Amino acid sequence: MAPELTRQRQADRSRETRRKLMEATVDCLVEHGWSGTTTTQVAERAGVSRGAQLHHFRTRNELVTAAVEYVGHESAEQLLRESGRVTAAADRTRAVVELVVDFFASPMFTAALELWVAARTDPELKPVVIDLEARLGRQCHKLTLELLGADEGKPGVRETVQATLDLARGLALANQLTDDSRRRARIVRQWATMLDAVLKEQS
Amino acid sequence: MAPELTRQRQADRSRETRRKLMEATVDCLVEHGWSGTTTTQVAERAGVSRGAQLHHFRTRNELVTAAVEYVGHESAEQLLRESGRVTAAADRTRAVVELVVDFFASPMFTAALELWVAARTDPELKPVVIDLEARLGRQCHKLTLELLGADEGKPGVRETVQATLDLARGLALANQLTDDSRRRARIVRQWATMLDAVLKEQS
Repeated sequence: MAPELTRQRQADRSRETRRKLMEATVDCLVEHGWSGTTTTQVAERAGVSRGAQLHHFRTRNELVTAAVEYVGHESAEQLLRESGRVTAAADRTRAVVELVVDFFASPMFTAALELWVAARTDPELKPVVIDLEARLGRQCHKLTLELLGADEGKPGVRETVQATLDLARGLALANQLTDDSRRRARIVRQWATMLDAVLKEQS
Repeated sequence: MAPELTRQRQADRSRETRRKLMEATVDCLVEHGWSGTTTTQVAERAGVSRGAQLHHFRTRNELVTAAVEYVGHESAEQLLRESGRVTAAADRTRAVVELVVDFFASPMFTAALELWVAARTDPELKPVVIDLEARLGRQCHKLTLELLGADEGKPGVRETVQATLDLARGLALANQLTDDSRRRARIVRQWATMLDAVLKEQS
């Protein structure tokens, strides 16, 4: 094999190992919580050797932070792929609010919540997660603005879009112990009506 | 001493021991998180003997669940005591939204969050916390309705008041790792305007 091809295959394999580790970490967090998520368990679940795992991530903190960032980005990419559908919807604002709220009420949020809560009382983890929270937060805000086709220059729009994301987080929290989807659907409908009024009032 | 007086003093002492244990538990949860909150540590912090503690609470789960319920109720009582001030405010809706949002962005919420997240992956704790969440949730909803002087019979009001509480939870979550009070104040102002429009539109 040409050396170039070998390098390419190694890179592919490395990426694939990383993906497996990231997904296994999120699954572990969702199933067993922060204290039940160990590097050994993740390696086993991913079907990756401990050596290969250590090559990518040296500590549990590194592994979990990378996993939440990975899944956050992957989910945002998925959101973008669905953007054509929602921006073309007859009731665009409602379609976007539904999409964003569903995005939060997901295993990705559950995994992130485990990391956020652990970081609060872990001085090593805390600054890393603050940074991650800020990056994912900005990405979500930008994406939601684009999906809504909203103009932040107009008074009240920025705060209302931010409130939509805070509401989505609050609703995701209420979904952790029980299935809250019926109540959530009624709130989403009402919120979409109110948000739409703010967006239209300004145009 | 008359037997009646002795019984009265014993009851007072017992209530005082309970109060100390409840407050120490919440302080422990806020400072050290779920995994750092042990019954031994709580007894020490409360200045209560292990024997007296065991008389009140047999397990960590019992202790922590009771503490979150205690602090939840205490905080709601405090909210009620402030109700005269907010219902008499020139901008009542905004005063109420500020009060409710501040109520959530508190150590009480941080302690509850630790319990909620732990309960998700603890089969013994989960049903107890689901029950507690429902009770505290109903209490908050009823209280917020009263403070706003809102009529749930009118279309959209019930969902908008629920959204206010979900938004408050989402904002409290965003305040766990950093001080988010400035951003929060802007969102609260905007939301109060939107909520007020819904409440007035219906009257």
